[in-house]
Amino acid sequence: MESLQPLSKLSVLEAAGRLSSHIVSTPVLTSTAIDRSYQTTLFFKGEHLQHTGSFKFRGAMNAALLAKEAGEVGTLCTHSSGNHGAALAEAGRILGFDVKVVMPKGANAIKVNAVRRAGGEVIWCAASNQAREEKVAQIQRQYAAVLVPPFDDERVIAGQGTATLELLDTVEQLDAVLVPVGGGGLLGGALLASEGVKVIGVEPDLANDTWRSFKSGERYGIDYSLTICDGLRASVGVRNFELIRRQASDILSVSEEAIVRATAQFWRDAKSFVEPSAAIVLAAVLENPEMFRNQRIGAILSGGNVDLSALQKPPYDRWMANEMAANTQ
Amino acid sequence: MESLQPLSKLSVLEAAGRLSSHIVSTPVLTSTAIDRSYQTTLFFKGEHLQHTGSFKFRGAMNAALLAKEAGEVGTLCTHSSGNHGAALAEAGRILGFDVKVVMPKGANAIKVNAVRRAGGEVIWCAASNQAREEKVAQIQRQYAAVLVPPFDDERVIAGQGTATLELLDTVEQLDAVLVPVGGGGLLGGALLASEGVKVIGVEPDLANDTWRSFKSGERYGIDYSLTICDGLRASVGVRNFELIRRQASDILSVSEEAIVRATAQFWRDAKSFVEPSAAIVLAAVLENPEMFRNQRIGAILSGGNVDLSALQKPPYDRWMANEMAANTQ
Repeated sequence: MESLQPLSKLSVLEAAGRLSSHIVSTPVLTSTAIDRSYQTTLFFKGEHLQHTGSFKFRGAMNAALLAKEAGEVGTLCTHSSGNHGAALAEAGRILGFDVKVVMPKGANAIKVNAVRRAGGEVIWCAASNQAREEKVAQIQRQYAAVLVPPFDDERVIAGQGTATLELLDTVEQLDAVLVPVGGGGLLGGALLASEGVKVIGVEPDLANDTWRSFKSGERYGIDYSLTICDGLRASVGVRNFELIRRQASDILSVSEEAIVRATAQFWRDAKSFVEPSAAIVLAAVLENPEMFRNQRIGAILSGGNVDLSALQKPPYDRWMANEMAANTQ
Repeated sequence: MESLQPLSKLSVLEAAGRLSSHIVSTPVLTSTAIDRSYQTTLFFKGEHLQHTGSFKFRGAMNAALLAKEAGEVGTLCTHSSGNHGAALAEAGRILGFDVKVVMPKGANAIKVNAVRRAGGEVIWCAASNQAREEKVAQIQRQYAAVLVPPFDDERVIAGQGTATLELLDTVEQLDAVLVPVGGGGLLGGALLASEGVKVIGVEPDLANDTWRSFKSGERYGIDYSLTICDGLRASVGVRNFELIRRQASDILSVSEEAIVRATAQFWRDAKSFVEPSAAIVLAAVLENPEMFRNQRIGAILSGGNVDLSALQKPPYDRWMANEMAANTQ
């Protein structure tokens, strides 16, 4: 199933052609209040408005379309903390596949429901990366299913790259593009799509394996993280890290407080309901204002499937409330 | 200062011309998930994306522009639970007026800050409609200020009508337009703008003076309300009720639980961060699904200045969490 040629910008262009009639060409959002507060100009690619509420639909649909082109029928399977699972379930529903999604216990209820709403079957496992890898391997054997991994996969990386491709087609002369990093599918795709434009990954301090890997040149993993960014808890993938190591301009690691404040600022000023894993791109500006001052910065808002109950727990609730009531100036 | 001719559709058209270079022509939003859940087609006018985050900027700016045309300089004043105050402060800042805003103690902190951010001065009063009327009269005398009331005013009603005018210019063949009702400025303007299209007001059960007034034919007031809709706590105005009594198709009164569920559904499915006073239009569909099934319904989303801390208190927090985690189908 995997493509034989190495990943390149061509892989992303091919994915864009394959996906064109299936995805939302999401809007690029701006906010004068946010720009004013950081003295910069930000262009947000609104993937919270993508089908199933995240960019994940791009990669999942690209893989599902390739499976169909290859004559596959039957079952697709994956493991996912949520957004990829919902995306694959929806892609499978549209193309006539059964979809089985291995999810860790304690996964965001919104994301679990989204899988089921699209007709996907949720199969629970323990909340470690190792446990879910084992469970999905078992499912794959049992149903002779096509595995569509959440990020460490050429088809998926190429599909995710189409978000950055669209951003760069829409907005000219960007000084850099900020991209959230979990497993590195979105960032890997952005690096393929963005020849000549600086791409910077952003990761939570509480799950900053990619930051550590990038700084050391050697791939680190994490087995478990409690970051509020439920979409960014995975360890960076092998294929993903290879792209990141070679081509990323930098990886920034940001605090939970900055992420929650950026989420609240985004809701308050831009009126867009994005999840913390998306607002992390603004947290990078909040924590490094001098790095981005007087520039034109692109940023991928990865999704909008917010787990509000997680943000209602201390200390997140206090950070949220403080920022919501704050004066932007 | 007040216009001498009676209010008509022409008043709204004139306001639209006067405002055209000063306001955001806000987008009309749709959500397939929301449409599917009620088997209807909804077109939401996104006034949460208006300057200062609510439709109030239209009426305030119309009044401020008329004051400037009339040669006024110096001070504008008003009383407001918030969105009108911020709107007038911003209109005054742009046109070079000082602005003083009388606000009730306990007003939404977001809205207080928005007044100050635009350079307006906040003057506190007790949390009753009578107290704020008295305080604003004192300010008006003290500074020889031009009073711009929040809703019971021809200039303001005509300005607010431009939101519905734009909606009807954008979307054809609507069966009805749903409009939130507090003091009735937005609804009064909608009635002027919408010749030939049914207009239905929506009010919280906890502040349903307009519903009672409409049903009885006699104007009722309320002095104090605890509805989560902090923008809809005012009593309907004299000029406003006169328009509503004559021209509104109906007024619907909805529960706090429906309002909070509709707010959560809007955030979850449409990814737009609107305030409960805006989401109340969806609450009307939630509580009366058969009334709107298989129709084309317009609805004015009045604003996006959300007081998140109010929604984090019981029982609102529970209603919010339940809806956020719910399956849309």
